[in-house]
Amino acid sequence: MAAPVKQYVYFYGFGKSNTEGDAAMKAILGGKGANLAEMANADLPVPAGFTVSTEACAYYSKHDSQYPAAMQAQLKAQLGKLEKLMGKKLGDPRDPLLVSVRSGAAVSMPGMMDTVLNLGLTDKSVQGFIKQTGNERTAWDCYRRFIDMFGDVVMGPTTGLTHHDFEVELHALKKKVKAKEDTDLTAEQLKELVATYKKVYQKKVKSPFPQNPLEQLDCAIRAVFGSWDSERAVKYREINKITGLLGTAVNVCSMVFGNMGNDSGTGVAFTRDGATGDSEPMGEYLINAQGEDVVAGIRTPKDLKDMANESDPMWRRVQKELYKIMSRLERHYKHPQDVEFTVQQGKLYMLQTRNAKRTGLAGVRWAVEMATGKDVFTGAAQQKLLSPKKALIMLSGSDLEQLLFPIFDIEAEKKAVPLVKGLPAGPGAAVGKIVFDAAKAEAMIKANKAEKLILVRHETSPEDVGGMWAAQGILTSTGGMTSHAAVVARGWGKCCICGVSSLDIDYKKKTVTAGKTVLKEGDWISLNGSTGNVYAGQLPSQSSPVIAAVVENNKEAGKHPIYKMYKQISDWADEFRKINVRTNADRPEDAQAARAFGAEGIGLCRTEHMFFEGDRIWAIREFILADDTKSREKALAKLLPYQRKDFEGIFKAMKNLPVTIRLLDPPLHEFVPHEKKEQDEMAKRLGVSPAQVSDRVRSLKEFNPMLGHRGCRLSVTYPELCVMQTRAIIEAACNVEKQGRVKVHPEIMVPLIGTVAEFEFLEKIIRKTANEIIEKRKAKFTYMVGTMIEIPRAALTADEIAEKAEFFSFGTNDLTQMTFGFSRDDIASFLGDYLKEKILPVDPFQHLDATGVGQLVEMGVRKGRSSRPQLKCGICGEHGGDPASVKFCCKVGLNYVSCSPYRVPIARLAAAQAAINS
Amino acid sequence: MAAPVKQYVYFYGFGKSNTEGDAAMKAILGGKGANLAEMANADLPVPAGFTVSTEACAYYSKHDSQYPAAMQAQLKAQLGKLEKLMGKKLGDPRDPLLVSVRSGAAVSMPGMMDTVLNLGLTDKSVQGFIKQTGNERTAWDCYRRFIDMFGDVVMGPTTGLTHHDFEVELHALKKKVKAKEDTDLTAEQLKELVATYKKVYQKKVKSPFPQNPLEQLDCAIRAVFGSWDSERAVKYREINKITGLLGTAVNVCSMVFGNMGNDSGTGVAFTRDGATGDSEPMGEYLINAQGEDVVAGIRTPKDLKDMANESDPMWRRVQKELYKIMSRLERHYKHPQDVEFTVQQGKLYMLQTRNAKRTGLAGVRWAVEMATGKDVFTGAAQQKLLSPKKALIMLSGSDLEQLLFPIFDIEAEKKAVPLVKGLPAGPGAAVGKIVFDAAKAEAMIKANKAEKLILVRHETSPEDVGGMWAAQGILTSTGGMTSHAAVVARGWGKCCICGVSSLDIDYKKKTVTAGKTVLKEGDWISLNGSTGNVYAGQLPSQSSPVIAAVVENNKEAGKHPIYKMYKQISDWADEFRKINVRTNADRPEDAQAARAFGAEGIGLCRTEHMFFEGDRIWAIREFILADDTKSREKALAKLLPYQRKDFEGIFKAMKNLPVTIRLLDPPLHEFVPHEKKEQDEMAKRLGVSPAQVSDRVRSLKEFNPMLGHRGCRLSVTYPELCVMQTRAIIEAACNVEKQGRVKVHPEIMVPLIGTVAEFEFLEKIIRKTANEIIEKRKAKFTYMVGTMIEIPRAALTADEIAEKAEFFSFGTNDLTQMTFGFSRDDIASFLGDYLKEKILPVDPFQHLDATGVGQLVEMGVRKGRSSRPQLKCGICGEHGGDPASVKFCCKVGLNYVSCSPYRVPIARLAAAQAAINS
Repeated sequence: MAAPVKQYVYFYGFGKSNTEGDAAMKAILGGKGANLAEMANADLPVPAGFTVSTEACAYYSKHDSQYPAAMQAQLKAQLGKLEKLMGKKLGDPRDPLLVSVRSGAAVSMPGMMDTVLNLGLTDKSVQGFIKQTGNERTAWDCYRRFIDMFGDVVMGPTTGLTHHDFEVELHALKKKVKAKEDTDLTAEQLKELVATYKKVYQKKVKSPFPQNPLEQLDCAIRAVFGSWDSERAVKYREINKITGLLGTAVNVCSMVFGNMGNDSGTGVAFTRDGATGDSEPMGEYLINAQGEDVVAGIRTPKDLKDMANESDPMWRRVQKELYKIMSRLERHYKHPQDVEFTVQQGKLYMLQTRNAKRTGLAGVRWAVEMATGKDVFTGAAQQKLLSPKKALIMLSGSDLEQLLFPIFDIEAEKKAVPLVKGLPAGPGAAVGKIVFDAAKAEAMIKANKAEKLILVRHETSPEDVGGMWAAQGILTSTGGMTSHAAVVARGWGKCCICGVSSLDIDYKKKTVTAGKTVLKEGDWISLNGSTGNVYAGQLPSQSSPVIAAVVENNKEAGKHPIYKMYKQISDWADEFRKINVRTNADRPEDAQAARAFGAEGIGLCRTEHMFFEGDRIWAIREFILADDTKSREKALAKLLPYQRKDFEGIFKAMKNLPVTIRLLDPPLHEFVPHEKKEQDEMAKRLGVSPAQVSDRVRSLKEFNPMLGHRGCRLSVTYPELCVMQTRAIIEAACNVEKQGRVKVHPEIMVPLIGTVAEFEFLEKIIRKTANEIIEKRKAKFTYMVGTMIEIPRAALTADEIAEKAEFFSFGTNDLTQMTFGFSRDDIASFLGDYLKEKILPVDPFQHLDATGVGQLVEMGVRKGRSSRPQLKCGICGEHGGDPASVKFCCKVGLNYVSCSPYRVPIARLAAAQAAINS
Repeated sequence: MAAPVKQYVYFYGFGKSNTEGDAAMKAILGGKGANLAEMANADLPVPAGFTVSTEACAYYSKHDSQYPAAMQAQLKAQLGKLEKLMGKKLGDPRDPLLVSVRSGAAVSMPGMMDTVLNLGLTDKSVQGFIKQTGNERTAWDCYRRFIDMFGDVVMGPTTGLTHHDFEVELHALKKKVKAKEDTDLTAEQLKELVATYKKVYQKKVKSPFPQNPLEQLDCAIRAVFGSWDSERAVKYREINKITGLLGTAVNVCSMVFGNMGNDSGTGVAFTRDGATGDSEPMGEYLINAQGEDVVAGIRTPKDLKDMANESDPMWRRVQKELYKIMSRLERHYKHPQDVEFTVQQGKLYMLQTRNAKRTGLAGVRWAVEMATGKDVFTGAAQQKLLSPKKALIMLSGSDLEQLLFPIFDIEAEKKAVPLVKGLPAGPGAAVGKIVFDAAKAEAMIKANKAEKLILVRHETSPEDVGGMWAAQGILTSTGGMTSHAAVVARGWGKCCICGVSSLDIDYKKKTVTAGKTVLKEGDWISLNGSTGNVYAGQLPSQSSPVIAAVVENNKEAGKHPIYKMYKQISDWADEFRKINVRTNADRPEDAQAARAFGAEGIGLCRTEHMFFEGDRIWAIREFILADDTKSREKALAKLLPYQRKDFEGIFKAMKNLPVTIRLLDPPLHEFVPHEKKEQDEMAKRLGVSPAQVSDRVRSLKEFNPMLGHRGCRLSVTYPELCVMQTRAIIEAACNVEKQGRVKVHPEIMVPLIGTVAEFEFLEKIIRKTANEIIEKRKAKFTYMVGTMIEIPRAALTADEIAEKAEFFSFGTNDLTQMTFGFSRDDIASFLGDYLKEKILPVDPFQHLDATGVGQLVEMGVRKGRSSRPQLKCGICGEHGGDPASVKFCCKVGLNYVSCSPYRVPIARLAAAQAAINS
């Protein structure tokens, strides 16, 4: 029995009964295809068509550009169905069906994939088109656009033919006939242009422009499939960490025409503002134009709000209908939508809908407003579309992070005179030095040759994404809110100002001129991405209202809507999350900030810096040089009062909350000078010979310090070190407790444990030291002794270790280093290749590797609790502030995550999301 | 309900009905106590007594020198029972019971624990002793020995009183009365000596010699318990890797007296020779002496064989009876025995039996002869006592290793004239420079100030063990085959010659004189531990008959009994073992030797050296300096013919057996010079600027090279490297196959794999390269592509990796480094402390850590086979040659172990033992 043939081509349009997919099928149909099917199911005006699945693309990509066996026949059948329902045939010289071919993966990648419109036009069928529409000018305009797009997009990658090759001819013709706009060209002139374009095509491609529409279609589908593996698509996925997709789908849609005169047009619209989050619909349109004219940013489009003011009253009806459909779509998807539409001779067609992209600020505002039904700025009522749970799920950690971005100092900006004003396309404030070339910007940042850059361009294109990423902000002279620069920047939450047509940018001279002001490459410039104002020079910026309210305790900032949104999201998060969030903080001020951000204790207080400051470094150096226990103890005695005072500060700042303190971790060579001159100074100061110092420094040198004499190993060799630190902690706790206002909960953490015997050895010393002090001081508090799990062997033998240790804290930085065998300091030499070749999906130091390292974390928790069911487990590696990693931590049952103070809100959100999704 | 009271004191003697233990209770009763009970159960003549258990010692050691609660009462009850059965009372002034107090742990530690004889003597009871025995001289002799031993052993550690303090008085007395031997002293003189000894005692101890026998007993038991934690006992256990014991037992035995005249005596005997393995019983005895006289090596004892020639015919009967008992014991224990006996007025008492210590040579000979029933030297028939399985179990890897020790060149030794001849107490040949002080010997070896030393002493004592361990061999002028030096050296398989009474050793002048020859410290001396011959100078030594026969293919050596024994053991091992043994070999000659030792393939052929020799280093340096793929390929092309030739040699040497070849593993910085001068030379030779070289070298520098850019990571960055090596391997295989006599089985091993994606990436390249060559050359052989599992993550994700990899080889060196987080190059700075504090039981790089690292190995095998049931798994770390680790490998189901060529026989034995014990 033969296996059932797999479906690779899905029909949509002409109502539910003819449509084969829906919105749930994104993985197979891509976002665009799935949503077109969904709209067709809802009887919205969608031009019919079919979608070639992402599975076909995956097959194509893996099988040396071969279609799967069944696909060709399915393609033919679905095209037949479309022709039948439309009553037109592809390439028919009497009444041709024209189609668009558009890519569409499961995740939107703006500007990365290529579109071909008007496919099906040939020398013969163009006559049929004229006959049917009676519009000769549109016919030739479509044909010349088609040759241009087909040549550039489909044949370009293999022949070097580009849009520019055609543009040159267009400009030449326009100059010749003194046409100002494209729309000034007549049918006859456009017909002449088609002939010229065909010559341009033949010259580069070495064969005539194909006159078989089926061949055109086949080439177009292959081009879309091929573009999936193009360098720029791969780069976009890399930057945006998009993995796990099969490929792109191909949408073949029957054409509707926005270029059929002044009763036609095309546009894009958003149900809510993607930059500010405002709930008014917004959008842009162009009359007598095809879709790519808007997206490409060549003509500056009109504001959607102005559509009602067009002279032809038909447009008012269209606007109303569009708003109604948009509202329906937002309610249906429960997410703001980004739609494309075309109006053909007064009839509105929806070409696409998708969840709208937005800045973090807008995302948070949408979530809060959709779940509270109230405008956070004005207090106006809105429709409630979401529950708080659903609202939280909409957000990412970086959305929330954007609320913490600096904004310009309000007073300073008030006084500053804007140089120019553009479209506020990306959020926040950005200050940097002007650079005109994207590749150069990328190289400068890579080479550390500039801290901050602003990329200034006429327009941006997919080739520029590297430089856009590297820059603080982007400024363009053409293109609207939906131009390439705007959409990409917004996706990243990066500051961007678009369409500043009054700017005169000269790439050759490397200047940008606004009125009488001429700025050169390297000059400072400041952008307010929220208002669109551009300033010459460096405008002072200030922290976000959230930072001001939380960290600086600024009451005024606490009334700011941005702070209110942060507060609302955090409150909701706390309602749902099931694990605690602590912070990594070594100093009282950090502890205080973290507390304000909602930290519920310190998960990691490193003690390294307590050996460095001021005179302390000399005491630890004396310790290192000493050659018997007595002398070492003498040196450590000098450190004791400093460390005790440090701990007192931290206990006070964290009042009543637990504080996990890690004993000294780094190898001793980090405390000694490695330059001869400094060594001589050290010898002089400590009264020994220079040779003694240099000998000792040499003896501390290690081949692999990461795997050397550090962590608890130091205290095994020098138990007096562990005694001094324990004394400092416990004496500080006694002192703070005695003051009576604060309860102390010290948790002493032994780093780098690999065997239970190591832990037992040190635990005995710690308890003996601590208990003597507590007894003597008659203190009331209790303390815990636990360990970091950061050596693979500790996780493997966690059952043994938990018999002695009262808590575990997973040190996933070191655990990642040892589980992978990657030195974080050395990984740069090969990480790039690993990411490029997809050997690693992501940098494992940024996102916890659930498959490998995560196995050890899970094992450590499980085994640990098999010996000590109430074992408190947490994580204190840098992964503690990474949302995906936090979710993993929830899954394996950790009691808390600990992260840097400013990541605490993000961790709270991630913990809530994990609880909601579990 | 109260818990049942634990038994701490066990009775033995007076037949089975009165005896409470047996040989199986070694852990609790110690070896001595368990065997005394076993002999009592068998109705052998054992002086009755009782044993205080090792559990009591463990309690004592852990509870600040407190006895367990129930022990005191049990002690009293068992003493009462002994007194009743013996019809004597401890300290009775009319008829006193005297006892010996002797230590005895589960594992014998010769010379390390302390013995007290004649306990129970007091000023009053000595009179009862005289009355009962009518032997006044013996009575005072016993009393003065008791004061000496009690003072030295029991009170010495806390008061500084030593045996020497008493010896001084003894010598003074002997000088005064002109006595030559101790036995020349009269009863009156000994009585006088007792009075002197008591003064000596009181002076140091600050209290009179105790006259309460129960107090004496209590002190003695505490002294034995205390000696368990003495420095020398701890050191012995460290050197001999003795762990897991509870403590020592204390045996309290009723005394019998070998010093009751010429019809009394004492001795030690072995059922077989512990040095040569000869099956004749051997031993030594002293007439009119107590046990410690023999062991201490003060008087040179007589050969047991001569007992039949004593003038009193009673001794012939005793000898016959002793031989009968010894034979019975050997049959009973199925192991040669080491017995102590005492003859009191014609009656034979067995004081102890235990499995005899022996050299590796003797152990192998015992095993072979007991299982074949045939003398390997003479062919004479013996009783068969063991099956081959049991014979194999008797042996350790180091026994077999001793058969591989060098012996003197036979011809050279024939010509050489021995300086003197002593007792052949430890096996093999040793050559070294004379040193007279054990501490100095130890220090010199530690400081690398001498390669080879011979320790020359009057006698050795437990304080000397460090120096004895450091020396190549030991030579003493007093003491017999059972003296401290002999027993300890034999246990280590170290060369030792004892009792060379004609040597005049002058510690002050640092000379040793034999006749007219005077040798100074630092002069060379040669010892033949198998014959007892001592030679001045350096005698040329040669490899063992096994090496000669196996590696050098020497036919004559193949007839040597030592080779025959090796062959027999290896054949038996092959009969039982279930896993293969391969070898780690990089060169044809190593491969050949390993094959001869029984290796069944190469488990690890490193390719590093193939980049170093001759001109190759310049090619790889050119590769390193190149900055594009083409130039790198050009450099690699130069290496290809060399590597191909290397592989051809290895395939030929390993004919028909599988060869696992590891692709390049070390980081590139190992191939470049780090000194300025050499860098300049490199620049000159490769035609680049010195700055280019030094820049590149600097860029290769890593913080933690162990975790850096090495292993498969090199081939990810430079796939051309992997291509070149694959070509070399496959082309070599084609060439060798074409010659027609040898089948090739290349197994290409990718090192340092951490994720399946890494493996997939490289496997594709390897297979593409290999298949093209095989197809083109029409070769018939197949090859495998597999990986090392040496990164923890690889073991954790072995199921994923095994979907692609055809075999696993566990690289336990790196796996240990990363699982523990220990850099093998840096561990020296703390390993000492870790072993001292028992945080690590052993060096994990020598013995596989079954608990932690072993868990990953087990997981790797299990998960790997879950994806690929037939997955071939092996080990190629240095643990592959360590018997304990080999047993672990068998347990977890590896298909093979791989080790250095000379470890192959040991691995074969260990594999057999694992199979037998499973």
